[in-house]
Amino acid sequence: MTRKVVLLVEYNGSAYKGWQAQKYDVPTVQENLEKALSVIANHKVSVICAGRTDSGVHASSQVVHFETDEERSERSWTLGTNTHLPSDIAVVAARYVDDDFHARFSALSRRYRYVIYPTALRPAILSSGLTWTYKSLDVGAMAQAAECFLGTHDFTSFRAIGCQANTPTRTILNFSVQQLGQYVVLDVRANAFLHHMIRNFAGVLMTIGAGEKPISWAKQVLDAKDRTQGGITAPPTGLYFVDAEYPDHFNVPSRPLGPHFLPYVEEPEYALSR
Amino acid sequence: MTRKVVLLVEYNGSAYKGWQAQKYDVPTVQENLEKALSVIANHKVSVICAGRTDSGVHASSQVVHFETDEERSERSWTLGTNTHLPSDIAVVAARYVDDDFHARFSALSRRYRYVIYPTALRPAILSSGLTWTYKSLDVGAMAQAAECFLGTHDFTSFRAIGCQANTPTRTILNFSVQQLGQYVVLDVRANAFLHHMIRNFAGVLMTIGAGEKPISWAKQVLDAKDRTQGGITAPPTGLYFVDAEYPDHFNVPSRPLGPHFLPYVEEPEYALSR
Repeated sequence: MTRKVVLLVEYNGSAYKGWQAQKYDVPTVQENLEKALSVIANHKVSVICAGRTDSGVHASSQVVHFETDEERSERSWTLGTNTHLPSDIAVVAARYVDDDFHARFSALSRRYRYVIYPTALRPAILSSGLTWTYKSLDVGAMAQAAECFLGTHDFTSFRAIGCQANTPTRTILNFSVQQLGQYVVLDVRANAFLHHMIRNFAGVLMTIGAGEKPISWAKQVLDAKDRTQGGITAPPTGLYFVDAEYPDHFNVPSRPLGPHFLPYVEEPEYALSR
Repeated sequence: MTRKVVLLVEYNGSAYKGWQAQKYDVPTVQENLEKALSVIANHKVSVICAGRTDSGVHASSQVVHFETDEERSERSWTLGTNTHLPSDIAVVAARYVDDDFHARFSALSRRYRYVIYPTALRPAILSSGLTWTYKSLDVGAMAQAAECFLGTHDFTSFRAIGCQANTPTRTILNFSVQQLGQYVVLDVRANAFLHHMIRNFAGVLMTIGAGEKPISWAKQVLDAKDRTQGGITAPPTGLYFVDAEYPDHFNVPSRPLGPHFLPYVEEPEYALSR
């Protein structure tokens, strides 16, 4: 009998050309995960994820599903699979799930965090897991600027030129900018994201935080509906896929919001109800 | 005129066979740092550090000195040197210092932190910057057990077989065990350390924390003065050199206690006065 399994997967994306398996022989998270799961399942496994991440982007809790005919314990899908994965990819939860679950199509929202470390000289520790800037950042100004992104908008100005999406319209459900420990963390939840969208948000907000543009510039860029009016695309190093939300009845496992090195914060009230 | 420069250096030791330059062609932190400084100085630079770290061990604030005949700005010794260093080594402060300063011999104490991440399944993020255990740890029991290490003792039981030190006697000035975020952190300050000493402390304390040995076992191991009575040597991945203390008149730069991903904690009162 074919059954579906849902996994939560953590990865340090530094060494990978993104999530998605490619035609050419380049290292990807998907390929490594499929290979490891196939050993446990004893048949070729194909996985689907909630949000495909780009080259160098990380995940503290990517959601993945796959189908299998083999009966294995949830422990086999976690511990067993991990023994066949490199040290920078790990399955952190596994559960059997209803047949109509789909990691991508069942997701109500996705959530990312973008971690910025503002400090005069570049760090050596976690250097591929943070975005470093030597500029000091005005977190309050960044938070205020981000408010204009809330709600449903045409995000053409924040969309990569090559973005494949049918429409530039997305709904931002939450957008916080907070100082967490030594880091400035953007935390963004949306129904879905355009290509490079969060890195383009980060580019604009870091420019405003550094005092190089006024707070009003964020809305100006948004209203322009023109990518060339936007700021730089901030590097992938600070970007983490941290959560995807599903209807409760699927009973998808959850874990504390990551990445695990960030201090725990009380969840803010959602800015918009669903 | 020959002058001395003191540096604070941060490094992720994962890719290095320890601090010390070796006869064989293996990557070391010292060799990379000397090469980068030599470019800036325009002559061969030799560095001396406060505490030589082993293969895979990190530093958030290693203290280093070197001599140079060339006049350069402190900015050149930091920013300039960093452009010639790999991304996992960075100079984070530089200052000219009195001729009688010596990074090793002037140090009054050294301080290390050992970062343990207890969680059921192994992490993928920061995997070479933490010591993972699937066992839950009783932090209170570990802290109580560590108390017996305070003060001056013969630490033969915690000394690597090949340790080159003249005497097994060391003075532990501080030893705290705390939950910081999701991590259990040992924080140890001593006049000096024996080879593998902190990793051997960590081995014993993790065994006690996991409930596999009673709290009293720590003192039993200490009193045995016999390495074979000790526990396992915990892995290098969680170990960070975080500080060295010098007489105030040297005016050595300082920085917030690292590694930077740990939440800030109020400094405890020193358990023993100097």
